[in-house]
Amino acid sequence: MAVLFRHIFQSPPPSSSSSASLPSTKPRPFFCSASASSSMEPHPTKFMEFPYVSTPHKNLMVHLVSTVETRLASHLLPSTLPPDVQYYQNDTATNHASLHIRSGLPSSPIDFILGSWLHCQLPTGGALNITSFSSYLNPSTDAPNFLLELIQSSPTSLVLILDLPPRKDLVLHPDYLKTFYEDTKLDTPRQKLQKLAEVKPYFSSSLYIRSVVSPTAILVRVEAVEGGLSLEEIIENHIGPVAREVLGIWLEQCALGKREVGENEKAELKKRDDLVKRKTIEIDLGSNFPRLFGPDAADRVLGAIREAYRV
Amino acid sequence: MAVLFRHIFQSPPPSSSSSASLPSTKPRPFFCSASASSSMEPHPTKFMEFPYVSTPHKNLMVHLVSTVETRLASHLLPSTLPPDVQYYQNDTATNHASLHIRSGLPSSPIDFILGSWLHCQLPTGGALNITSFSSYLNPSTDAPNFLLELIQSSPTSLVLILDLPPRKDLVLHPDYLKTFYEDTKLDTPRQKLQKLAEVKPYFSSSLYIRSVVSPTAILVRVEAVEGGLSLEEIIENHIGPVAREVLGIWLEQCALGKREVGENEKAELKKRDDLVKRKTIEIDLGSNFPRLFGPDAADRVLGAIREAYRV
Repeated sequence: MAVLFRHIFQSPPPSSSSSASLPSTKPRPFFCSASASSSMEPHPTKFMEFPYVSTPHKNLMVHLVSTVETRLASHLLPSTLPPDVQYYQNDTATNHASLHIRSGLPSSPIDFILGSWLHCQLPTGGALNITSFSSYLNPSTDAPNFLLELIQSSPTSLVLILDLPPRKDLVLHPDYLKTFYEDTKLDTPRQKLQKLAEVKPYFSSSLYIRSVVSPTAILVRVEAVEGGLSLEEIIENHIGPVAREVLGIWLEQCALGKREVGENEKAELKKRDDLVKRKTIEIDLGSNFPRLFGPDAADRVLGAIREAYRV
Repeated sequence: MAVLFRHIFQSPPPSSSSSASLPSTKPRPFFCSASASSSMEPHPTKFMEFPYVSTPHKNLMVHLVSTVETRLASHLLPSTLPPDVQYYQNDTATNHASLHIRSGLPSSPIDFILGSWLHCQLPTGGALNITSFSSYLNPSTDAPNFLLELIQSSPTSLVLILDLPPRKDLVLHPDYLKTFYEDTKLDTPRQKLQKLAEVKPYFSSSLYIRSVVSPTAILVRVEAVEGGLSLEEIIENHIGPVAREVLGIWLEQCALGKREVGENEKAELKKRDDLVKRKTIEIDLGSNFPRLFGPDAADRVLGAIREAYRV
């Protein structure tokens, strides 16, 4: 969901002076519906509103999620998330977040799609905005998943993670590497972005995250500089086209491509998929969610994610 | 051996105007001993002479190979390579190379060590120098291998590949990732080098090579600029210390660390090791060696490498 949480919040935790200092046993009021929000604030109940990010950033997220929900409409069940998981905030209303999960039909290769946005006030006075969208396939296919994450911690810089994470060991399966990464020319979008002066490779501090992504993963930090392109222009004219291109490859070649998977292989895929899901929760969410949103909301949201992940 | 061959020689092939234009069926004279070299040239018969690179570059290679041969002396058999594989050149004496292979004793976890250097005149008038040293373990252990390669294609720039390539799928084996990459703090040397202004991440054009390396792999391009550090200074004061540090971790934690490996796991390791070896030959050497050194020398040298690789 938010694969960079731990890196951005490594030290010190940003909300340690607000929510984390409250006794954890005290029952907390929790704003879980629109009516609980201040009338002066945006109305952040619905996932698709992306209320805290720039228009190009919002437009990109809406486009990606809508494209998948339209193209895969016949594969997806309606969302069953309770309202206080679809939108939640911390006690002091400095941190706001939304979660969107739709599971695939039992007959579909789609396991689930998961989108989220998160807005946190930083102790430095700025804000952190993370938007993410991922699509997981189930073991009826071995095709890669889809992962996009935009982490913006200042008005002029963001980290982009965009990848089709493989579901097999690529070293042991060069044919899989060829099918999904070489023949699809998946490195081309990465090379396009890399040409921009504002774009630098990004190294996650989690070696597990570095291991999970593909060799064509786009892991970059984008820093707008004065006199150059603005972050909004970079999102609209560079990140957007590249993200749409990668999503198109995922939809046609992965989500809707036919793959033959034997029973033994299904079991192996399930084992690897489950491990990735458990490790992702452990790395990304386990330690940060309670800190950012309090233990009750963290329990609810992590519970919903674990239910979708079935781990 | 030379994991970047294909990228440097992608187009056009550098020696196409010299050796490759000769009819490939014609028997060729081949200089395979010191007496065949011009008396005005360095005396490139012995691998450890590294005759075409700068003193700091040579010193680093000699140090790394000597350290391994001393520390693992009781594990290694003497070299059995014929002289015309230990040193070889092309018909027109524009390209020179040396190979050094020592297999491990049957009782040792060392499969073999493999060193090489290569000097090729480029059509542009410059020269390409590649020096490499790698150490492979056999399936009695699952510990990572060692890989170092320095590819210098101009007096002011080089590509460095330095890694302990894993021998298991790290996604499926997070304990292995922890033992060999997290607990050993293997990312620290990478971070040190990355701080230099002259150092930029390098992306191999082979997605398979990108998949084979670890998440702490050092894959960088070093470009010396006027008024800054020279390439020799960077090798002596930055690359050297980092390479020695990574080799030290490999020697103590991998080559000489005890690991329990069951029979099933040995078979899996062998399958993966063999596949990596076959793919590496295919990617790096198969198409370039005949072009650079003529078909006869290529056959001899690839034959010796395949024998060491046992694939």
